[in-house]
Amino acid sequence: MDYEVILNDIKPTQKEQYEIDAMSEKLVSFLEKTCIGEGIDARIAVVGSVAKHTALKGKSDIDIFMAFPLSVNANVLKETGLYLAHKCSDEFNGDASHHFASHPYVTTIIEDYEVDLVPCYEIEDGSQLKSAVDRTILHTRYVKANLTEEMADEVLLLKRFMDMTGTYGSEFKVGGFAGYLCELLIIEYGSFEETLKHAREWKYGHVIDLKDYGTSGEFNDPLIVIDPTDKNRNVGAALTLTKFAEFIQSARNYLASDNKKEYFYPLKRNLNQNRILDEFEKRGSDLIIIKFDMPDMPLDTLYPQLKATTESLVVKLNDKEFNVFDYGYWSDEESECVVLIEMASSKLNNIKVNIGPKVFISKACENFTAKYGRENCYILSDNLVHAQKREFVNAIDYVSHIFTKEHIGLIKVGKNLKNNIVETYEFTDLKNVDVEFLDDFLNPGQHIVR
Amino acid sequence: MDYEVILNDIKPTQKEQYEIDAMSEKLVSFLEKTCIGEGIDARIAVVGSVAKHTALKGKSDIDIFMAFPLSVNANVLKETGLYLAHKCSDEFNGDASHHFASHPYVTTIIEDYEVDLVPCYEIEDGSQLKSAVDRTILHTRYVKANLTEEMADEVLLLKRFMDMTGTYGSEFKVGGFAGYLCELLIIEYGSFEETLKHAREWKYGHVIDLKDYGTSGEFNDPLIVIDPTDKNRNVGAALTLTKFAEFIQSARNYLASDNKKEYFYPLKRNLNQNRILDEFEKRGSDLIIIKFDMPDMPLDTLYPQLKATTESLVVKLNDKEFNVFDYGYWSDEESECVVLIEMASSKLNNIKVNIGPKVFISKACENFTAKYGRENCYILSDNLVHAQKREFVNAIDYVSHIFTKEHIGLIKVGKNLKNNIVETYEFTDLKNVDVEFLDDFLNPGQHIVR
Repeated sequence: MDYEVILNDIKPTQKEQYEIDAMSEKLVSFLEKTCIGEGIDARIAVVGSVAKHTALKGKSDIDIFMAFPLSVNANVLKETGLYLAHKCSDEFNGDASHHFASHPYVTTIIEDYEVDLVPCYEIEDGSQLKSAVDRTILHTRYVKANLTEEMADEVLLLKRFMDMTGTYGSEFKVGGFAGYLCELLIIEYGSFEETLKHAREWKYGHVIDLKDYGTSGEFNDPLIVIDPTDKNRNVGAALTLTKFAEFIQSARNYLASDNKKEYFYPLKRNLNQNRILDEFEKRGSDLIIIKFDMPDMPLDTLYPQLKATTESLVVKLNDKEFNVFDYGYWSDEESECVVLIEMASSKLNNIKVNIGPKVFISKACENFTAKYGRENCYILSDNLVHAQKREFVNAIDYVSHIFTKEHIGLIKVGKNLKNNIVETYEFTDLKNVDVEFLDDFLNPGQHIVR
Repeated sequence: MDYEVILNDIKPTQKEQYEIDAMSEKLVSFLEKTCIGEGIDARIAVVGSVAKHTALKGKSDIDIFMAFPLSVNANVLKETGLYLAHKCSDEFNGDASHHFASHPYVTTIIEDYEVDLVPCYEIEDGSQLKSAVDRTILHTRYVKANLTEEMADEVLLLKRFMDMTGTYGSEFKVGGFAGYLCELLIIEYGSFEETLKHAREWKYGHVIDLKDYGTSGEFNDPLIVIDPTDKNRNVGAALTLTKFAEFIQSARNYLASDNKKEYFYPLKRNLNQNRILDEFEKRGSDLIIIKFDMPDMPLDTLYPQLKATTESLVVKLNDKEFNVFDYGYWSDEESECVVLIEMASSKLNNIKVNIGPKVFISKACENFTAKYGRENCYILSDNLVHAQKREFVNAIDYVSHIFTKEHIGLIKVGKNLKNNIVETYEFTDLKNVDVEFLDDFLNPGQHIVR
């Protein structure tokens, strides 16, 4: 496999690298001068993948952290940080907006670069941590000290491979591998291919402990990568079991493939709507497709709530003896959400057995027969039972029942979604659903193999 | 409640009792004379409900046991016993036939009485037991010594109550209370009503130990009644959990009823076929009705095999995700058997997931992808899986598949039924099924309440 060809496509050119470094330098230098001029005690650092030279082409956002001494009051840090950020943005004619991580920061667009300007505390190790962002400077420092330029290229290959096989990104939508996690894997295994060769044999709870802290016993996660800058943190904590497993299998698929190059490029797919509708038709499943307005909320809150809502609905349907075959959810991340439930069977007979108390609990049996009438009760094994009309014979009727103000509490619905579901949901059909989502639903394995 | 009215209907008249006693006496006296005349060492005894005066009207079969000393060889006992039995039958112009319990005996019809002539060993307690029938003389002796004439009437009421509410009879078809068990209950509680009042509060594993043997810990059954003639035997061993529970509930229903008399007479039921078909229609269930020829076999073998076969079929259907709501089986006890399976849902979609190995077992994953193709495998949680066409989309197709010579082994089919099912089964509809069976299927609680 000739990785140079791939790197040619995915690595920023020398010119791009030079330009971004120059821009970073300009920003840092302005901020440093401002600090000196105004007597602000803050150290300015370029962090993130740009600083580490592990940014993929076209993903070169500039992250600049302003690190204040631990003695500074949190409000002062916040206000001084935002002041510096806006001053810097204005100086370079940026288009600034506020964001919130563990504390507020500024994102600004300067000459087509997206620049994050983030105030934080200057710490020396994880034990001093005041907020999650404080670690970033330590991470950048550790990676720069332990990653050669050649290894940085291997990180690019690994990130790109994961990105194209669907396991890259620690945001909740994906639940995959963070960039820092990729860097640590390359530091551990030396190269992209070695990483994949080892990953083939990973078991649940695989441990990577670069600094031999011996703290892995604290964690019960699929992959445990002790943070070299914080022995009590698992860098793999956000990695879901599914994405861990998918990466293992994608590594096997890649290493066994004659078609390796394809793993570094977007999946070639046929998104013809008629083909997709035909495939659904062939499965012979009843579908429940629910569309509702997306509330105004961050994506890292939206996806966990969509997942929890859908899964809770699925549990309820199965509880009622409807047989859910598979399910999925989707959002355009702007205005609408879709929940798709594919039923192995969605119709039931009209009768159900209401299981009452054990016959040996005489008082409970007395109450049961008083409620339902002695003549309607009978024995099933050693329970007193009662046959009654089944409330919901069709799965879709049960969903309609749940999606009302009175009954939405039956499911664990994401709190931001609740009102929007009740007020705006409608049942729709496949023709009105995003074809890429449907194609992935029909072919859940297509990303990890070429 | 005026029990005299009931007894009038269910107790043999004095004339009937006199006649049956006289007939028994004639047979005993002939057998005794024959033994003396031919130098056979056997003691002749009338046993069973006739001897104990606990036989219901019209159920007065005469049981005569010929008890040989324990020193007699088993073959000699058998041959001498059968010789005596036939000689006796011939003397009274009986119509004799052979039967087998633990050893052979003769049933003969003499002047409209059914007479059982059974050779056995004379034992003094259960520890000397050579075969199950040896106990009968001990049982008869114990009951005659402990049951007054008034208590014998209470036994009649209890047996009749159980008979009319469906819990009487220890044969496998019923799995209910044996006659001897009823007698012991009356000896314990004194009367029919007291028995029901206590039964209301029975718990699982209730113990009755008339002779305080203290051996109840040996048993784990719903009802434990230590045999006064054998401390290591539970007289309630054949009682099923369901019949135990049904008796408890029927006792409560009876004691709370204003309609007590009805509990001693056959259930009044409407067996109109159209009404029954309508009721099934309303339930909206798909039905699978299987009819096949009954093999020549004893009923106490037929019913357990019918039960096991049906239940095994139900398990298989549920395993394949078909949803069985209820099931039943029936035989005319002469030529045909019916299995009825009522489905909550009997149709599925066309696709199923074939769950493969955990992704962590690399060798197994290699085999799995080799078999199904890498491009067809994907990850579900931490399993490698593969979507495939579902083999059976309709429950009835799956039953047809099982009911073939090649696949009948998929279910635990009664060995006597196996060939008949494969060779003679057919699917039929409700119109061809016994209405009483269907009515009981629709109304499983109707027997325990009036």
